[in-house]
Amino acid sequence: MGRLNIKNINPNVVEAKYAVRGELAVRSEEYRAKIRKGDASDLPFDHVISANIGNPQQLDQKPITFFRQVLSLLENPLLLQHEDVLTEKLGYKSDVIERAKWLLSHVGSVGAYSASAGVPAIKESIAKFLERRDGFHADPAHIYLSGGASSGVNTLLNIICAGPDTGILVPIPQYPLYTASLAVLNATCVPYYLDESSNWGTCFEEIKSSYEKAKSDGIDVRAIVIINPGNPTGASLTEADIRSVIDLAVLENLVIIADEVYQTNVFIGKFHSFREILLKAQKENAEKYKGVELASLHSISKGMVGECGHRGGYFELIGFNEEVEAEIYKFVSITLCAPVIGQCLVELMVNPPREGEPSFELYDKEYTGIFNGLKQRASALYEAFKDMEGVECGEPQGSMYLFPTITLSQKAIEAAKKEGRTADEFYSMRLLEATGVCVVPGAGFGQKEGSLHFRTTFLAPGTEWVGRVKEFHKKFMDEFR
Amino acid sequence: MGRLNIKNINPNVVEAKYAVRGELAVRSEEYRAKIRKGDASDLPFDHVISANIGNPQQLDQKPITFFRQVLSLLENPLLLQHEDVLTEKLGYKSDVIERAKWLLSHVGSVGAYSASAGVPAIKESIAKFLERRDGFHADPAHIYLSGGASSGVNTLLNIICAGPDTGILVPIPQYPLYTASLAVLNATCVPYYLDESSNWGTCFEEIKSSYEKAKSDGIDVRAIVIINPGNPTGASLTEADIRSVIDLAVLENLVIIADEVYQTNVFIGKFHSFREILLKAQKENAEKYKGVELASLHSISKGMVGECGHRGGYFELIGFNEEVEAEIYKFVSITLCAPVIGQCLVELMVNPPREGEPSFELYDKEYTGIFNGLKQRASALYEAFKDMEGVECGEPQGSMYLFPTITLSQKAIEAAKKEGRTADEFYSMRLLEATGVCVVPGAGFGQKEGSLHFRTTFLAPGTEWVGRVKEFHKKFMDEFR
Repeated sequence: MGRLNIKNINPNVVEAKYAVRGELAVRSEEYRAKIRKGDASDLPFDHVISANIGNPQQLDQKPITFFRQVLSLLENPLLLQHEDVLTEKLGYKSDVIERAKWLLSHVGSVGAYSASAGVPAIKESIAKFLERRDGFHADPAHIYLSGGASSGVNTLLNIICAGPDTGILVPIPQYPLYTASLAVLNATCVPYYLDESSNWGTCFEEIKSSYEKAKSDGIDVRAIVIINPGNPTGASLTEADIRSVIDLAVLENLVIIADEVYQTNVFIGKFHSFREILLKAQKENAEKYKGVELASLHSISKGMVGECGHRGGYFELIGFNEEVEAEIYKFVSITLCAPVIGQCLVELMVNPPREGEPSFELYDKEYTGIFNGLKQRASALYEAFKDMEGVECGEPQGSMYLFPTITLSQKAIEAAKKEGRTADEFYSMRLLEATGVCVVPGAGFGQKEGSLHFRTTFLAPGTEWVGRVKEFHKKFMDEFR
Repeated sequence: MGRLNIKNINPNVVEAKYAVRGELAVRSEEYRAKIRKGDASDLPFDHVISANIGNPQQLDQKPITFFRQVLSLLENPLLLQHEDVLTEKLGYKSDVIERAKWLLSHVGSVGAYSASAGVPAIKESIAKFLERRDGFHADPAHIYLSGGASSGVNTLLNIICAGPDTGILVPIPQYPLYTASLAVLNATCVPYYLDESSNWGTCFEEIKSSYEKAKSDGIDVRAIVIINPGNPTGASLTEADIRSVIDLAVLENLVIIADEVYQTNVFIGKFHSFREILLKAQKENAEKYKGVELASLHSISKGMVGECGHRGGYFELIGFNEEVEAEIYKFVSITLCAPVIGQCLVELMVNPPREGEPSFELYDKEYTGIFNGLKQRASALYEAFKDMEGVECGEPQGSMYLFPTITLSQKAIEAAKKEGRTADEFYSMRLLEATGVCVVPGAGFGQKEGSLHFRTTFLAPGTEWVGRVKEFHKKFMDEFR
């Protein structure tokens, strides 16, 4: 009965997989609801830890005061009629008030649609940030504000993908937004494996061979996605790795999509943007690197900002054809504009208080505190994994995740099969049921045949939950020995 | 050169049209930028009026104080440590503070992702609103928060459309989101004309004959879109009209997509939701109306709320198959969640201050003021159109638009042709160039062959701009007589 059923709706949507918010996440929300209702006496835990998703403010991360003070004035500009109360009674510094006035003068009301590609003054602010970060001029005309990086990725893939013959190189493991979006668009994902043995770096030969294989299958491979720093791996690419990806893009005429949302979550090494390395290469050898098409994305959801719920981000285009950009403009205009408060947060992220300004001291303290806290939690979790039988994990490098390998017994693998699950799904479900800790099985990101992983954020505070994970793991290993 | 060009990118995106933010809108933004830079001495006007888009707060409409006070506290919860200052110095009433606390207790931080389909407590609030509005129980489990209604429409069409054979009945004239989204999805738009002679109402026979024609062309017509009150027409459907659409849906097994974002913008008649009329019909004749699938959408962008920039809305599903809903859940989860501040505004919209509560008086005054202001402006514009040669316009009924017919001379039609434009595009471009007033040509919404229209909002304050339009029109008619 019914007009719509699973067999006649869009098969591309049915095909898409998105484990980050899949069965385990749904189950964990059910547990959370039970606990909230006081109806959890049958559960062996009293709270749920959502380590399945990089959602800092759901856990312990506090928003940065300067950002939120400015936003409160943007939401209620009538407060600006009481500057003395703001400064004397409520701790708002003068730069908070100035920034709010400046944004309002350009935005008008945050309740109005902005221009389709974003507020012009905010695009200019982003361009200046890119110039400071990379040392090369940026043109606001090629910057597009988006509702988080996800919506930017959606726009880019909608433009690039022209059907099942279009191939996009995607790293494995990867954040499943890419495979899910390609499935919805009925385009072809061309996977290339990251090298776990070298800290999940990219390997020129591996990418080249994936490319060649797809090409020989008749696929028109048009673009390569790079997530740097990596999700779920945390790996931060070296300048040489980036250069070799760019060289491959030149060789095979590929568009580069650089997902750089974790650019400030770097513990080891230094973040280099694709933009910086490309523009440097173009300066050195204009002829060779001429016309490379690069789209790079950033977001307010990650880093020390962590404002996922505000859905803000942007992408910048380099080397794109003018008519193609006109289509991108049209595509984003159909959804009208990115959330304006999120756009304002992008402005605050790329243009935070500077040394000497009234809000700098607190901003700097909060920012550094968050950074160090993340690093400490990552280390604590890493140390715990070291103690766990059959668990191997590289040193935390960045992003918000660890992605350990787990080696499970044949008995566990068979028990999983009986439930119609992969072994890592089985393990993760048992973990959730026993501890309330929700992780994502490696299968959700892709992994080499025969290997098993899970991804966990290291955002949750405290160490008690890590102890629960260790205890569960020991029991699980014993049960299936 | 370049990897991507207009010939090889997604042809479905290239095919899509979206005039609301098309060439005229782009040109008007260029004028606005020139004026801002003080570089407008060659323009015959000194400001631009964006009457092309229903964007109330870009023009004169002030946000509702209660809403924005609550939002300011959600953005900066530290303010709640100073309740005395808020109430004594800043005019925040106790119900503002209570509501903010209540929302924060359910949302946590507005900077965190919510559950994919939205904050559970906000879904419950919406369900209660639907019950009050329609007199029938609503289940929060079938409510999905979205980033404006546009993103809800995008979700629904992505699920329903399974390729070029899928047909969706769309009213003409229509808000071009529908045709643009269907083009991107490579599905078939099955147009049915609204009846201008009966206030742009729906006509059972007309819809039926469009349906039959598409069916005989081999199209699998699955759904019918209704925009009520109408955009661009303003028409508010009668109970009988709605019932006849539902009867057609039963007869031909169609999903109903009811776009009800203008439900409070009604000057003539009374708004009836599809939900109310369907549930009433089911109560009367359970057998006949069993299993009808209805998706209805609402938004914070329109009405007296007018908070477009916050990108908030929801849709509710009735009668949908469980497996199909699971796919809808997965689809929305890929984009993570609707902006959380926008979700909170949805809560405030559906649950505003009530009589006797401290903020009610001001809320009511502001709400009524906006409503009356819109009605007055609509009347003033309508009166002006009456005086204009060759312009015919029905009495303003609702929404935020008037959609007059214009009759242009053969000479004007030929001058338009020479520029490669339709006559209504030509007229609208000349209007913009002469007055700075940006409207949307009827071609952007669809109109009967040989008829010409334009859509203008009646949001802009004052009458001076209306005078400019009249003066332009006279000159235009004289020039092309």
